[in-house]
This record gives sequence, C-alpha cells and structure tokens, in this order.
Amino acid sequence: MTALPAAVRIREVGPRDGFQNEPETIPTEDKIRLIDGLMRTGLRRIEVTSFVRPDVIPQLSDADQVLRGIDIPEDVEVSVLIPNARGLERALLLRDRFDDIGVFLSASDTHNRKNVNRSTDESLAGLEQVIATANAAGLHVEAVIATSFGCPYEGEVALDRVLEIAQRLAAAGAPEIAFGDTTGMANPLQVRDVFTRAREALPGVELTAHFHNTRGQGLANVLAALEAGCESFESSFGELGGCPVPAGATGNIATEDLVSMLHEMGVQTGVDLDQLLECARDVREVLGRPLGSHTLVAGPIDWQRG
Amino acid sequence: MTALPAAVRIREVGPRDGFQNEPETIPTEDKIRLIDGLMRTGLRRIEVTSFVRPDVIPQLSDADQVLRGIDIPEDVEVSVLIPNARGLERALLLRDRFDDIGVFLSASDTHNRKNVNRSTDESLAGLEQVIATANAAGLHVEAVIATSFGCPYEGEVALDRVLEIAQRLAAAGAPEIAFGDTTGMANPLQVRDVFTRAREALPGVELTAHFHNTRGQGLANVLAALEAGCESFESSFGELGGCPVPAGATGNIATEDLVSMLHEMGVQTGVDLDQLLECARDVREVLGRPLGSHTLVAGPIDWQRG
Repeated sequence: MTALPAAVRIREVGPRDGFQNEPETIPTEDKIRLIDGLMRTGLRRIEVTSFVRPDVIPQLSDADQVLRGIDIPEDVEVSVLIPNARGLERALLLRDRFDDIGVFLSASDTHNRKNVNRSTDESLAGLEQVIATANAAGLHVEAVIATSFGCPYEGEVALDRVLEIAQRLAAAGAPEIAFGDTTGMANPLQVRDVFTRAREALPGVELTAHFHNTRGQGLANVLAALEAGCESFESSFGELGGCPVPAGATGNIATEDLVSMLHEMGVQTGVDLDQLLECARDVREVLGRPLGSHTLVAGPIDWQRG
Repeated sequence: MTALPAAVRIREVGPRDGFQNEPETIPTEDKIRLIDGLMRTGLRRIEVTSFVRPDVIPQLSDADQVLRGIDIPEDVEVSVLIPNARGLERALLLRDRFDDIGVFLSASDTHNRKNVNRSTDESLAGLEQVIATANAAGLHVEAVIATSFGCPYEGEVALDRVLEIAQRLAAAGAPEIAFGDTTGMANPLQVRDVFTRAREALPGVELTAHFHNTRGQGLANVLAALEAGCESFESSFGELGGCPVPAGATGNIATEDLVSMLHEMGVQTGVDLDQLLECARDVREVLGRPLGSHTLVAGPIDWQRG
C-alpha cells in the first residue's frame, strides 16, 4: 500500500443526487435547512440542486427557491448540476448564488440515450458549448463522466474511450473531471487503473471519484483511488442517491462513512463528523425511513471510552 | 497497490455468528436447510453452530440437532465454536460430524469480562487446555482474538498484546489465528499493520481476517488485508451477525459482497455467487426483514447484458 494523501476534498452531492431520487419531493424549507446544516459541517463543496426540466425531475423543480433561500458561508463552494444550455441559462439568472457547475454525460451510448435521449457524441458537442458559456461567466466546471467503470446496458466500457471523453471535456475548459461508477460496477483494481491512467492522460486536471455503494464496495474503491493519488471525492450524506436509469440503482457512498474511514487513517477532510451525523439524522427524520449510512446507525468510533 | 493473492479461503460464519444474534430463535429445520444450501455453494469452510450454554444463548441450544441433521459434502470443513472445556466435551460426543473448532477470547480485558466473565489471561489458560484436548482428538483449531483492532470499552488495544496472545495460542496448538474487528473499529492502514506484523510474528500460522461492516468500511479492510498478504477471511451471508456485547454491535461483512468484490478483482474463492445469493434470499425470507448485504439487493454485476 502506497502512502495516502494527507488531505482530500469532498463534494457533498446528497441535496442533488439524493433528493432527486426520492419518490416524494422534499419540501423546499426542509431542503434549505438541510443544506444550511451541511454547509456548516466543514464541507467546502456542496452540490445543492440541478436545473433540469421540472417536468422530468419534479423533485428539483424548486432549484431557484433553494438557491435563493440558502445561507452560504464565505468558505463554501456551491455547485449546481446543469444538463444543457437551457439549464445554464436558467441558472445564470442567479449567478451570484453559486461558484461551480457540474455537467454530465455517460461514457456508454446506451446509458446516455436512456438518460438524456442523445448519443454520447451529441452530448459532448452540447457540453462544449455549455462549458464555454460557463467559463465566460467565471464559473468553475466539473464534468462528470457517468458509467466510467461499466454500463448496466452495455457491460464493459473501454477505458480509452473514457479518457478520450475526459480529454475533450478538459480541452473544452473543464478543470475538474469526475469519473462516475454510476451503478456500482467498479472494483478496486479497476479503480487503480482508471486513476493511474487518468493522471497520465490529464496532467493538471483535478480528478474526482464518484462512487456508488451498490455492492458494498464503495469504500474499498475509495481506498484504491487514494492509493492511486486521487484527492477529490463525491458522496451523499445518509447514503442517499442513485441514478434515474436503470430503476433500482442504489446510493452513493455515505459521506459519514467516507469521513469516518478517512479520519481514522489520518487523512484530513475538514469535516466535523458529529455535525455531519446531525444532518444525516435530520434527513432521516424528513424521509421517515432507515438510510444506508452505517456510521449513522453505529455512531462514530469512540477511542476515549472506557 | 501490491499484487493480490490469486485465491483466498472463506469461512462462512452466518449460521453461528448470525443466528446467535437474532432475537427470535430460528427453527432448527430452517437452519439445517440453510446450512445444507451454503455447503453446496462452493464454500469450503462453514461454522455451523456453537456449544455455548443454552441458557446464555438459547438461539443455538439446538447445536446437537443441527450438527446431526446437516448433510455434509466431502469437500466441506465443518466447524463449531467452542467457548470452554465443557463445550468441547459436549461437541466431542458428535466428533464425526465436524472437522474444526473455533475458540475465542478478547484481547481487551474489559470486553472479555463482559463477554465471558473472566480476564483475558484466565481465558488464555483455559483455551490452552481446550486446544490440547482438541488436538488430541485430531481437530483443526482456529483461535479468534476479538477486539484485535480496538475495544468499545477500552479504546486502543496494543498490537504487541494482540500478537503476544496470538503467539501463545499458536504455541498451544492452534494452526490458525483470526483477528476479529468485533465492533468495526479497524481502518485499512491499521489492518495493513496488523497483518504485516502478524506475518512476521507468526511464521507458518494461517492468519484469518474477521471484519465487521459497522461503519461501512468492511470491504476496504478486506482490500488492505489482501494487500498485506492475508488469504483467509470470515464473513456472514446476508451480512448477518454482530456481537453479544455491547448491544447494537452490527453485522459481519456480507459473504455475497465479499465474493462479488473478490471475483471482480480476479481473486478466486470457489464460490458460486448466484447460488450464494439464493441462500441469502432464503434467510431473508426466514427472518422476514431486509438484510445489510448490498449484492443481495442489487444482484450480481452482469457484464454480458446489453
């Protein structure tokens, strides 16, 4: 095992990736309270909503109100997910309320078509325009490549293809590329390969790992990514989240479990785990069901007890 | 990341570690059917019950009937957990029905006292006798050291102490030592240290990892153990299990999740994942509640789809 980074960046994506996957829309005032809480845990990056079409994802149709309503501390980077030029147009009306945008496409054509009804190459062309507009507006851009580790419809996704897409997005002006294990098909050896090769192919680009815990292997993949030098992760409080297609795709890794493991290994995150657990308890109460997060059930490790 | 072993051994402990932690005793005929199923998945080692006092753990008071009732294939090593000399005496009445015994103690005094009402040193002395008797009967002995990675009552447990206990147990005649993360306090860096130092301290001894998924980090710890050369693991189908003390201690790693991750990395286990999932579905139906296993919910990865 190689040395691990001394510190990593975490982007909390629960308010977007999680809330959009709940069958019942969460009331706007609850969202605002939950995001305000998360922004005070020490998390420095939070994806708070998405400017998708309200008729497609009604759960996030209050994007404007959420963005207007939250109380943003100076040291927090707020990001919103942008599906296309139209979404960016809507978001830019509230330009002073966020710092980053996330854009996304799938490395596999079939998943991309089922998700956004066009080919990966069509998405790429559209996103190049979106990235240019975002750059002109002074926004940081994170480009997320879904199904980077495998596709539930096509099976294997060639790493060469994933890296080619990443290079095009970086060349278009995205300083951060996230590799998404959208349906939890990644294994640690593969994660090591992807991040090792991505570091070579994308010098100077921030590489972010976005893992799902679909088969319980999420934190093992985090460990492999850390060993390959990855210093940026995305996760959801409570282990919320999933993917609109296919049905039943399960949650992101839980931010509480990620933070617990990192802190136990001496990797700094800046996050106060107790405050984060407070937020996870709050969202569990709002949703009224048990959540997938393990540390939420077990509590943090108490080395002082005895 | 160093090279991983080509193959590992898995001991399924759900029928003991899992069933003893269920509030309602599972009917004996269900246990027998479940164990018979597990023994036909390719799992080569199964801990089927424990000869504890029936008034202390009534859930396993049918140890004799279970051991008599199961239909044991030739290539499966059946093991039973033995708390003390009295338990071994009872088990030896059915000597032809099992191959291995597991004995256990906790590295931390407080946990050992709460679990078995004596000090670690008192347990050690007793187990040396039990191991001698077992060896005389031609049994393979696995000695499990609970709280090897931390104690919920005392906090840190000195690795020197853990290794000293391991050496005494090995010297007494236990060819296999398992290090138990009884309440899920281990992190991957610590796991690497423990197994690296244990390999040096215990040449020729089989070293087994027994992890719990208390804070979602179970498979990350498996990865770290693999990297440190560990080739033997214990897990529970369905993510059943826990520990009698303290209350609320959560489950072992799920055998399905372990097998899925290992196979994806090309590490052989001999287990048929589909058949194992069949057993996990069966126990979920018997228990009538959702279980912690992720692969049980998501299904195995299908690389052929598309």
